[in-house]
Amino acid sequence: MTQQLPPEVLNLIDAALTEDQAFNDPTTQTLIPDDVAGDGILRAKAVGVLAGGEVARAVFHRIDPNLVVNLLLEDGSDLTPGTDIAGVRGSAASILRAERTALNFMQRMSGIATATNRYVREVEGTAARIVDTRKTAPGHRFLDKYSVRMGGGYNHRLNLADGILIKDNHLAARAALEEPLGAVVRQAIARASHTIRVEVEVESLEQVREAVDAGAHIIMLDNMTVDTMREAVAIIDGRASVEASGGINLATVRAVAETGVDLISIGGLTHSTDALDISLDLEFPG
Amino acid sequence: MTQQLPPEVLNLIDAALTEDQAFNDPTTQTLIPDDVAGDGILRAKAVGVLAGGEVARAVFHRIDPNLVVNLLLEDGSDLTPGTDIAGVRGSAASILRAERTALNFMQRMSGIATATNRYVREVEGTAARIVDTRKTAPGHRFLDKYSVRMGGGYNHRLNLADGILIKDNHLAARAALEEPLGAVVRQAIARASHTIRVEVEVESLEQVREAVDAGAHIIMLDNMTVDTMREAVAIIDGRASVEASGGINLATVRAVAETGVDLISIGGLTHSTDALDISLDLEFPG
Amino acid sequence: MTQQLPPEVLNLIDAALTEDQAFNDPTTQTLIPDDVAGDGILRAKAVGVLAGGEVARAVFHRIDPNLVVNLLLEDGSDLTPGTDIAGVRGSAASILRAERTALNFMQRMSGIATATNRYVREVEGTAARIVDTRKTAPGHRFLDKYSVRMGGGYNHRLNLADGILIKDNHLAARAALEEPLGAVVRQAIARASHTIRVEVEVESLEQVREAVDAGAHIIMLDNMTVDTMREAVAIIDGRASVEASGGINLATVRAVAETGVDLISIGGLTHSTDALDISLDLEFPG
Amino acid sequence: MTQQLPPEVLNLIDAALTEDQAFNDPTTQTLIPDDVAGDGILRAKAVGVLAGGEVARAVFHRIDPNLVVNLLLEDGSDLTPGTDIAGVRGSAASILRAERTALNFMQRMSGIATATNRYVREVEGTAARIVDTRKTAPGHRFLDKYSVRMGGGYNHRLNLADGILIKDNHLAARAALEEPLGAVVRQAIARASHTIRVEVEVESLEQVREAVDAGAHIIMLDNMTVDTMREAVAIIDGRASVEASGGINLATVRAVAETGVDLISIGGLTHSTDALDISLDLEFPG
Amino acid sequence: MTQQLPPEVLNLIDAALTEDQAFNDPTTQTLIPDDVAGDGILRAKAVGVLAGGEVARAVFHRIDPNLVVNLLLEDGSDLTPGTDIAGVRGSAASILRAERTALNFMQRMSGIATATNRYVREVEGTAARIVDTRKTAPGHRFLDKYSVRMGGGYNHRLNLADGILIKDNHLAARAALEEPLGAVVRQAIARASHTIRVEVEVESLEQVREAVDAGAHIIMLDNMTVDTMREAVAIIDGRASVEASGGINLATVRAVAETGVDLISIGGLTHSTDALDISLDLEFPG
Amino acid sequence: MTQQLPPEVLNLIDAALTEDQAFNDPTTQTLIPDDVAGDGILRAKAVGVLAGGEVARAVFHRIDPNLVVNLLLEDGSDLTPGTDIAGVRGSAASILRAERTALNFMQRMSGIATATNRYVREVEGTAARIVDTRKTAPGHRFLDKYSVRMGGGYNHRLNLADGILIKDNHLAARAALEEPLGAVVRQAIARASHTIRVEVEVESLEQVREAVDAGAHIIMLDNMTVDTMREAVAIIDGRASVEASGGINLATVRAVAETGVDLISIGGLTHSTDALDISLDLEFPG
Repeated sequence: MTQQLPPEVLNLIDAALTEDQAFNDPTTQTLIPDDVAGDGILRAKAVGVLAGGEVARAVFHRIDPNLVVNLLLEDGSDLTPGTDIAGVRGSAASILRAERTALNFMQRMSGIATATNRYVREVEGTAARIVDTRKTAPGHRFLDKYSVRMGGGYNHRLNLADGILIKDNHLAARAALEEPLGAVVRQAIARASHTIRVEVEVESLEQVREAVDAGAHIIMLDNMTVDTMREAVAIIDGRASVEASGGINLATVRAVAETGVDLISIGGLTHSTDALDISLDLEFPG
Repeated sequence: MTQQLPPEVLNLIDAALTEDQAFNDPTTQTLIPDDVAGDGILRAKAVGVLAGGEVARAVFHRIDPNLVVNLLLEDGSDLTPGTDIAGVRGSAASILRAERTALNFMQRMSGIATATNRYVREVEGTAARIVDTRKTAPGHRFLDKYSVRMGGGYNHRLNLADGILIKDNHLAARAALEEPLGAVVRQAIARASHTIRVEVEVESLEQVREAVDAGAHIIMLDNMTVDTMREAVAIIDGRASVEASGGINLATVRAVAETGVDLISIGGLTHSTDALDISLDLEFPG
Repeated sequence: MTQQLPPEVLNLIDAALTEDQAFNDPTTQTLIPDDVAGDGILRAKAVGVLAGGEVARAVFHRIDPNLVVNLLLEDGSDLTPGTDIAGVRGSAASILRAERTALNFMQRMSGIATATNRYVREVEGTAARIVDTRKTAPGHRFLDKYSVRMGGGYNHRLNLADGILIKDNHLAARAALEEPLGAVVRQAIARASHTIRVEVEVESLEQVREAVDAGAHIIMLDNMTVDTMREAVAIIDGRASVEASGGINLATVRAVAETGVDLISIGGLTHSTDALDISLDLEFPG
Repeated sequence: MTQQLPPEVLNLIDAALTEDQAFNDPTTQTLIPDDVAGDGILRAKAVGVLAGGEVARAVFHRIDPNLVVNLLLEDGSDLTPGTDIAGVRGSAASILRAERTALNFMQRMSGIATATNRYVREVEGTAARIVDTRKTAPGHRFLDKYSVRMGGGYNHRLNLADGILIKDNHLAARAALEEPLGAVVRQAIARASHTIRVEVEVESLEQVREAVDAGAHIIMLDNMTVDTMREAVAIIDGRASVEASGGINLATVRAVAETGVDLISIGGLTHSTDALDISLDLEFPG
Repeated sequence: MTQQLPPEVLNLIDAALTEDQAFNDPTTQTLIPDDVAGDGILRAKAVGVLAGGEVARAVFHRIDPNLVVNLLLEDGSDLTPGTDIAGVRGSAASILRAERTALNFMQRMSGIATATNRYVREVEGTAARIVDTRKTAPGHRFLDKYSVRMGGGYNHRLNLADGILIKDNHLAARAALEEPLGAVVRQAIARASHTIRVEVEVESLEQVREAVDAGAHIIMLDNMTVDTMREAVAIIDGRASVEASGGINLATVRAVAETGVDLISIGGLTHSTDALDISLDLEFPG
Repeated sequence: MTQQLPPEVLNLIDAALTEDQAFNDPTTQTLIPDDVAGDGILRAKAVGVLAGGEVARAVFHRIDPNLVVNLLLEDGSDLTPGTDIAGVRGSAASILRAERTALNFMQRMSGIATATNRYVREVEGTAARIVDTRKTAPGHRFLDKYSVRMGGGYNHRLNLADGILIKDNHLAARAALEEPLGAVVRQAIARASHTIRVEVEVESLEQVREAVDAGAHIIMLDNMTVDTMREAVAIIDGRASVEASGGINLATVRAVAETGVDLISIGGLTHSTDALDISLDLEFPG
């Protein structure tokens, strides 16, 4: 996340500060004179991977551009309990108004990076990539996908527009028109723009054959056993990328990776994120 | 969630559909003629509590106002695998464009309602209320807090403006000014608007006494043992509301509730939500 | 108003400059070359209390970040005709484009602070606080309420969410259900979140008794005579906060305050504001 | 205000409902079941002129599109205490959530229309038009100017772009360049687009002569006595429109009008508006 | 353009109506009573291809939802002078307020469709597709690309995110790091998400060989002669898609298509659009 | 375009960068490390007039505020192939992300300025001004009209609100009410605000007489021959401004100007703009 944050992230930061009424905080208004200086440290309280440094900085600066935010680590860095992530120095009242929103962003983003990284480490040494899905928190697509990359994962489609993915419901629609999977794949390739790949979700080895013969660029093996996946990989034999999907967890991901699939997609990275525990400790000089 | 959705939720729906490029979907554009009719069912695949029916309806209607969305259950209803939640009838292409975004909302919201409800059931028969925190997904404050209520929980502060909560960092700021907790509480009460309650976070029984003597309206017991909480409740003796906070989970919540505290706050309800599994199955009539 | 302005105020500034087409001003375009320097002074032309310094600065900077805005007085300061409020130095054309919008904000805000302050001075020495209402100019809630504080007043509810206020229309709705005032108050307390106070509007001493016995936290005496208010205060006897409301003006407010009420709400502070007269005088060095 | 409201007004309605948290109202949530029907009447409590019927309707519909809003009077109609303005029928809870915001708009708008109308009646029979200024509440330009028209007044410039108005500060800038008023007016006419009129503010009869000789289309007589204005009108003799401005009130406006000026501008119509008293009474059928 | 328009298009319509002050039109306000009914016809005055029917409808409905808009032709239809495109019936004043904005959209969109279609017809019978570029009018990407499809063209990348396109400036950056084209292509493929294709711009046959050997998915021939393109196609020999780009016009496009390239990109379709002449004729029944 | 850009232009820049996903560019992400410095030159590749320097600068700074943008020429300057327009120095990746959007703005704006300037030069020495129309690209009104001024042209109405223009459709509406043109013009003048001019479109010399006698301020000669225009000018004889409109091109504009008309409006300046060819060349120091 070099350079600037995109408009939708700045809007989300504004929405978050507005919904928290961060510019209207009676606790600091009644108790902390604006000229009391504080020295805050964002500090990890668990093992994980950092994401969200620049976003947290933007939150602090939206509340008070005079706060000095010093990022000690880059996104993607490993964290253990006690690791110092960033310093924030300036008006204590400003720091306290921004604290919760900054942490809400960083804890979710680091939680995604951390979960992703656990899967990535689990498949280390295989050729399989861990990829995300479109099951992101509404409004957080850019940040969720960025956090997956910070954890060492890769992104699947960013949105509906940048790839064709023919799923069971699409096939059912065409089946109602009595068209076989192969014909559907061929039609998608023929009609789509040349910049787009065509992926198809299959549930049986027969469908695998049909898909690969029709020229599908990516084949998604949906909820197959490890053994069936291995057979599918053999059938496809390099003619398409292979994605494993559905019900894969930390306990099973290594075995899936060893079948030779290229991609393993994990919806839970973004739809069932555990926030990484990070605290802000404030000290008051002299 | 009767009547209309607030502007910030409509904006979030638009942001979610924009980031998913739902109006620009080559999969349906190349494969599903707009006049193919479909009949979709949103169906639970796990045990839980529903939230998000009206939001999902708004998502479908934003894509295509001609879709007929029939909510079969009200938010707050119990779900088991196979429970039908809602029907969506109309252009199959429209249903498919909206599917992921509608589910992303409903799965997160129902996940929050479900987690809340587990805690609520655990403390049944005690006087303790399960309450949320401000640790919500950025931009989702309204929906996250609503979902907690649908699960049977209560809301803590909606935002910084609607209550004073003096936490360790605030006390540290004042300690730097050499002021004791009691004086800080008294000042907050004196200066605040009369519509606002003053809560203070305490870490010892001594602080409990100081807070209650100073007239604090709510006292938050931070990370105390069950025994200490019981003592604190006895000391406070009805002169203030008592909130238990910090590190409480499903295994310990009952014991905490039985100490006599009024409120138990659980950050994980909203910061570490597990999406509830809900699917959309599409059928094609005749 | 330390630090930054909230998003809704920045949006309002942008809306104000857009509706005034301040970036498209043929008067300065045809007459004032951009490099003509000017030296402007914002100066009071009437007795009052200042509010809006930071907002005016933001307006000038939105038009031209190179303008040097020097606030000579803090919000809340007393003004008399001729008091210098702020200096603005830089491109004369920029100053002239921003002038009207900057003054529109500052004159309204100072008008509110001034009116509030007149009431505050009138009740000096009593325990009564002057409070505002929700009768603010649409889109100006934050600024109007801030200006009341700058005039020495206190804020009533910021919005519908941060308190329960049971008014005649609510009671009428429940009366249609044949429920007495006391039962309504008890139900509100039982169902509401613990962070929220419950206020009820009463029109007779009988209702006062019913409300206070039911545990209402705040009792609003609606359009009562001074004598009846005094009786009501005696009946309530410290068991709830007491608010006087309805038809109170500068001539009567002292007598109302001396009844012992805690709060006196004045809708006119924000719904019938007189702009405070402030001018911008421009000089041209050398 | 036929047909639809412009985007900036819809945005202002959304901003007003958001700042009032109208979608999050614990008073109605805890007390009024959504299916309780109510029958509301908007009723004048003072003498005045109505403005804001369509805006109020839009506010009610934004909260609940099922509310039936029946406008009994058109904007511009005369009101006396007790005049029924509009009926609102449907969910009582919805009506109560929208009430304050709908009234805040209608009371301000009717207040402007009422004040304008008082001036308009005062000059009846003369050729003078009552016009507004750009001293409107930020964000309310469209509504404030519309309300002036509803009161029988005319609009001066809507914004900086739709006319040239050379004021003292502009002249001062040019004087620093040692240019006389006449030359400034001529330059403005020569450079401006042909769709734009050029107005100049003058403070003496000498300046009047200079302005009219230079071809100014409108001449603003700033803070002149009635006698001087009469002389100015004679000098101008139909060669330009004449506007009287500065310190004119209801007591003096007739005498000003009788000098023969074409336009009398009154800043107070919009910068020091008194809300017109309008109430919403709710009844509960059966 | 079935179903609903995306948020960015609705925002653009609002921006267009706002910048035209379509809700504030003194011409119709002073001359056309709102209840005068009119019957408008959108009619082609030139040969071309239609695009923008739904957008025009949305413009009319944004001004007045009671207007009845009857689209007589689907987007993509052929037009000749005199072809009736759509009828608009209702308040004449409403039709006149919306007219210019509706036409501004439809004339630009139809202009793009028309220009595209001329190229498409020119290459009929060859395998080459006419594709657009990212040289669209700012804010019009969705509409411009849609219009290209309506003219029978295909879309190139929608945006930077949905494909890798290595251009001369990227190669220059890597050349500064002393890396050859082939290595750059390989690195892009290795690091990119699997859903993304990698295209590279080449300027010589040597670069063509290097690119295809490195596995580039698409090769863009930049400003080559027809003969060199033919050689390039032979070298690539089906191992990658081939795009011709740069300085191609209606006179040369057929010869380019016959070289066997797959894609011909034409920036002028969207950066130098000629509006298609379309008029709105209004009649007044009875 | 001195000082700051208006909110609608900043929003358009954000919309343009968002639709191009400029913050999410896999080409630079995979290939160009953020710390590779580049030195870019915006350079004209055709003869024309520059417009858009400040807008391009804002685009680069929105992507990366650390880019140093050095505008070498002011808007309105003449360009020939090879003219250096501006330098951009800093992170090469940032420059490449912003390049297309910056050029899309500057090429359209310079295209408008260039076309305008061709007409302006053609009528040099006559009294006629070249003016634009409201046929601008939706969302680009401010920039399109600004670019016309940079090319030496003048602006016609900015929007519907700042002038009355009675066109054939308005006259048809009134004709249905059996009212002659003169009466319509008189009514418009009587009812309109005094800051607004009244223009009427005429199609015959008879209508010219009727319009001028009724006091129309501007008379638009619609699609008349040069000879008829000359007669019309004679009839009007300085009593109103005269605008020639309809089907005028570079070949005929001089003859039209020599008829003595004051204004010549050319819709094609903004509805059929040819982008001016401008390139960004990137070099890598050392």
